[in-house]
Amino acid sequence: MTPSGVNRPATDGLASPGMSHRSPRFVPILKDVRNRVVRCLGGDERYGSVLLGTSGTGAVEAMMGAARDPVLIIENGRYSRRLTAIAAAQGHEVRSLHVEDFDLIDEATVGRALAASPRPRTLALVHCETTTGVLAPLQGICGLAAGLGVNTMVDAVGSVGAHSPGLGQTGPDWLAAGSGKGTEAIPGLSFVVARRSLLADAEPGRAGYLLDVGRNWKAQEAGAAAHTLPIPLVVALNEALRRWESETPAARERRYTRTATALRKGLQEHGFEIVPLHEEARSNVVIPVVLPLGVDFAQVQAELVERDMEVYYSEDAQARGYFVLAHIGGVDPDAFEEFLRALTTSCRAQLTPALPQGGECRA
Amino acid sequence: MTPSGVNRPATDGLASPGMSHRSPRFVPILKDVRNRVVRCLGGDERYGSVLLGTSGTGAVEAMMGAARDPVLIIENGRYSRRLTAIAAAQGHEVRSLHVEDFDLIDEATVGRALAASPRPRTLALVHCETTTGVLAPLQGICGLAAGLGVNTMVDAVGSVGAHSPGLGQTGPDWLAAGSGKGTEAIPGLSFVVARRSLLADAEPGRAGYLLDVGRNWKAQEAGAAAHTLPIPLVVALNEALRRWESETPAARERRYTRTATALRKGLQEHGFEIVPLHEEARSNVVIPVVLPLGVDFAQVQAELVERDMEVYYSEDAQARGYFVLAHIGGVDPDAFEEFLRALTTSCRAQLTPALPQGGECRA
Repeated sequence: MTPSGVNRPATDGLASPGMSHRSPRFVPILKDVRNRVVRCLGGDERYGSVLLGTSGTGAVEAMMGAARDPVLIIENGRYSRRLTAIAAAQGHEVRSLHVEDFDLIDEATVGRALAASPRPRTLALVHCETTTGVLAPLQGICGLAAGLGVNTMVDAVGSVGAHSPGLGQTGPDWLAAGSGKGTEAIPGLSFVVARRSLLADAEPGRAGYLLDVGRNWKAQEAGAAAHTLPIPLVVALNEALRRWESETPAARERRYTRTATALRKGLQEHGFEIVPLHEEARSNVVIPVVLPLGVDFAQVQAELVERDMEVYYSEDAQARGYFVLAHIGGVDPDAFEEFLRALTTSCRAQLTPALPQGGECRA
Repeated sequence: MTPSGVNRPATDGLASPGMSHRSPRFVPILKDVRNRVVRCLGGDERYGSVLLGTSGTGAVEAMMGAARDPVLIIENGRYSRRLTAIAAAQGHEVRSLHVEDFDLIDEATVGRALAASPRPRTLALVHCETTTGVLAPLQGICGLAAGLGVNTMVDAVGSVGAHSPGLGQTGPDWLAAGSGKGTEAIPGLSFVVARRSLLADAEPGRAGYLLDVGRNWKAQEAGAAAHTLPIPLVVALNEALRRWESETPAARERRYTRTATALRKGLQEHGFEIVPLHEEARSNVVIPVVLPLGVDFAQVQAELVERDMEVYYSEDAQARGYFVLAHIGGVDPDAFEEFLRALTTSCRAQLTPALPQGGECRA
């Protein structure tokens, strides 16, 4: 139930030490990982990838560094506001399209913002906003942008594995994601996937040194990583991508759909109310749940942690009367029922009025 | 013999999945790691640290983002030129003090450059330059800078563990290093250690978003990481720091000295000539060796890899007639003799003229 959840099998390959990122033994592994990431995300030979030794945020920052100005950003939650913060730190010319947190992003509204003058050259958005669980209608939006010659950059950190980005059809030109979450590898690595032509043309400088996507691309295409990569994590990622390929991306997406459906059903059976979302905005990975009035979710979190269950607490969500359940990273559905019982017990305990303390009762 | 070498015990804790970087269980671990790093580097309560989910380069970039201009950079090899490249990407006002690659950095020359007008406000240098093995006389230089009110920033990625940076005495104000190499943990994490007053005053923006040292400092001081950290690696780093503390930093430095001494002796016994360096410039971790004339070190590397031995090949060094042996990360000294025999065999094979092929011999 944690957004950084890691399957036990994802630790395969972690105990393979003693190789340098400049070793000739590492060259084919780096190549494998970079090709597999593209294939798992549905890209073909027109796409390439850059592997970075950072969390997903690093890939998002590296990708945004290559944005052409003006940049239009769809803002509908904390992670899309992070896109704006990153673009501002990079000195980009930014415009924001505000969408209410739990609303479906409206394609017609996006179309108008894309056609406005001065015409944006880049559209950036978050595929699945982790703070609300709202999914963007990605293919529709990317199709609109493509029709207007606007490049799309998608933060897919939260959606990777669980929703196809549709690369190569009507999907984005650029995508950033990490090794954790739906990639089901050990967190700590990230990747930028984009059209090869755009990677080759990426201007230097906007994302600094470590995260310069163009320089990293050139080095990795030449067979060498520009920076030290954590080898054990790369080996583990390669194994995780192999599992993803063998499961098939379509089957993995269906698995996440099934899990989300089961979790929604279970929550309702236990009396929880799910925040009502437009059907197309419902993600396979994050479910926003109405917080029963008077429940302090920080306390619920502490009680669940005592029982070795991890949930995600957000002050912001608590203040607004909801909490989110993320089941990213391949949570075992068999554990749901036990989790839901513990969650229900913890919420109910706070709602049961305390019994009067002895001595004060009068007959 | 690899610069990213990893001890097998460093994988302790790696198989501890299922915790989020926002979990209350993670808060004390993050605090432990941040305090231990400061103590292992010899810092006291005046120093603090920021943990980053990147390679050492990320910490160097984060640290340089907080430099006050003008910045004076001592350039004596590839990694010090990297400092200049990073500072330039960040828009700093930079001056360079060039020192020949294999020369001892002369304190008097540094003193004159520090006193020049306009007075630098930051001095940046590499402690141990991995491409040559040259060690900077760190305490002397930092003492000079402190006397002139200039802050020092040290890239200690290559020297960490093997040479004390002397924090709190005449050591640097800022230091950057990683979890690999002499930290003897799994690579993939890095840290900036600095005076608390400087961390609290760090201006935002110069190093972008992910690597903004001031923002990361504030978040981590409040008990939360600003960005996803790879939990298994943090747990493994905590264990590695525990081992470092228990070995004691002084004993670890002596261990690296002993290893370097044994390796130098072994190289000479096998007929190799070590690049002559000033005694004070000799590091405990990287030994530059004269490449026997006519030997292609890329081929030596390939042959050693076949035998499961990792060495570091640099085109630049090969072109200039040397190669470097790094034994960072706790290489077993017992393996040296086997390695040296294999190295010697591989070099000799290239120097032995090929026997004439059959048929052409005339009596």
